[in-house]
Amino acid sequence: MPQLKAFNISMSVDGFMAGPGQTQEDPLGADGESLHEWVFDSPGPVDSRYLAQRTQGVGATIMGRNMYGPVRGEWGEEMWRGWWGEDPPYHHPTFVLTHHPHEPVEMDGGTTFYFVTDGPAAALELAFDAAGGADVALGGGASTIRQFLDARLLDELNVAIAPVLLGAGERIFDGPLPAGYGVVSSEPGEAVLHVVIGRTS
Amino acid sequence: MPQLKAFNISMSVDGFMAGPGQTQEDPLGADGESLHEWVFDSPGPVDSRYLAQRTQGVGATIMGRNMYGPVRGEWGEEMWRGWWGEDPPYHHPTFVLTHHPHEPVEMDGGTTFYFVTDGPAAALELAFDAAGGADVALGGGASTIRQFLDARLLDELNVAIAPVLLGAGERIFDGPLPAGYGVVSSEPGEAVLHVVIGRTS
Ligand SMILES: NC(=O)c1ccc[n+]([C@@H]2O[C@H](COP(=O)([O-])OP(=O)(O)OC[C@H]3O[C@@H](n4cnc5c(N)ncnc54)[C@H](OP(=O)(O)O)[C@@H]3O)[C@@H](O)[C@H]2O)c1
Ligand SMILES: NC(=O)c1ccc[n+]([C@@H]2O[C@H](COP(=O)([O-])OP(=O)(O)OC[C@H]3O[C@@H](n4cnc5c(N)ncnc54)[C@H](OP(=O)(O)O)[C@@H]3O)[C@@H](O)[C@H]2O)c1
Repeated sequence: MPQLKAFNISMSVDGFMAGPGQTQEDPLGADGESLHEWVFDSPGPVDSRYLAQRTQGVGATIMGRNMYGPVRGEWGEEMWRGWWGEDPPYHHPTFVLTHHPHEPVEMDGGTTFYFVTDGPAAALELAFDAAGGADVALGGGASTIRQFLDARLLDELNVAIAPVLLGAGERIFDGPLPAGYGVVSSEPGEAVLHVVIGRTS
Repeated sequence: MPQLKAFNISMSVDGFMAGPGQTQEDPLGADGESLHEWVFDSPGPVDSRYLAQRTQGVGATIMGRNMYGPVRGEWGEEMWRGWWGEDPPYHHPTFVLTHHPHEPVEMDGGTTFYFVTDGPAAALELAFDAAGGADVALGGGASTIRQFLDARLLDELNVAIAPVLLGAGERIFDGPLPAGYGVVSSEPGEAVLHVVIGRTS
């Protein structure tokens, strides 16, 4: 059975996956970039193995509208085309949760952004269909991950604890996990601690 | 200059250093024991090196009253003598922050518990005197560590991120660090991620 998995979600020691004050210049909020240093700073073999999972056997991606971009409210005249340039690293159909409908945005390299206004379960059905039997990746952000987890739609949440402190921002864990979830494995990488949360019953 | 250091403070992925509902049976609160599995479960060489720092060049310890024991309010007739049996692992003067005065409690092996009612700075002065030039260890719990950090009396806070989720409990980090503190180093151990927070200016 294909699964829904969130890969390499970077989290600070104080529990934040993004800093406060997300802007076009600071997509991860104040100091949030430090969360992803381990990704860009010549990752070692263990960290690389986890990073590679992101693309292996994945046929579609789901993300929240704030991860897609800094635009809030109406989309405006000139449509935002994502943070990633004309050839985003997804190379497959990518579903963006939003309250603001929009025509699909087709990019180079196989990525098309679809805007879904019917909530997580509807987005997941579209994504599984589009993935054609492959897994679906849940990209983030915090609000989106929490919703899929709370609805028990997420099969695996792969967290990378980075040795940084942000002091404020967006938390994923703000109370007990839903029943039936727990830590299923953990492995120290070269720069971060990988902790896999999954279904335990 | 001798320093005040908190060693191997175990923290869950969701930021708790103790679970909720601390009792005599569950000194670390509900599920809190899982925080310390890495200590008791044949630690590897890196984790062992961090554990060893706790006793090297340390001449006194400070802790909060809740870390000392489960008694709240008045001490009662039969004085609580700590969680650790008649020969506690400290082997030096140990200062317990409390609002409830009590005579010192002398144990075997060189540990004497002194009860300090004048707050963190007073406890630290007594501990530095007693340590005779050696460092002082800050044992915990969360409330005590936060106070020493906020008063900028703590020189080093050594956190061990354990791959467990508690869902609720006592947090150390509940807002920005005081100015002048940050992450000074980090090292993945065999079972946990060691993150050292210290003075950066
Ligand atoms: N640390 C990491 O590894 C990592 C990974 C991914 C992202 N991030 C960061 O996380 C931050 C974004 O997280 P976030 O929690 O602010 O936002 P998010 O989950 O990306 O997006 C939330 C937004 O998506 C839309 N949305 C969510 N659920 C919906 C629903 N059920 N129905 C309709 N619309 C829905 C809403 O937008 P509208 O109402 O405006 O349409 C909502 O405000 C960014 O800073 C990003 O860089 C970090
Ligand atoms: N994860 C770890 O590595 C680790 C390490 C150590 C401890 N712990 C756990 O942490 C928990 C205890 O943490 P905690 O935050 O509940 O409590 P704590 O810091 O150990 O103790 C707090 C108590 O100490 C007294 N106190 C603190 N500051 C004071 C002051 N300025 N003046 C006078 N009295 C003062 C007060 O007691 P009174 O008013 O009652 O006198 C206060 O309620 C325990 O579950 C323990 O097992 C975990």
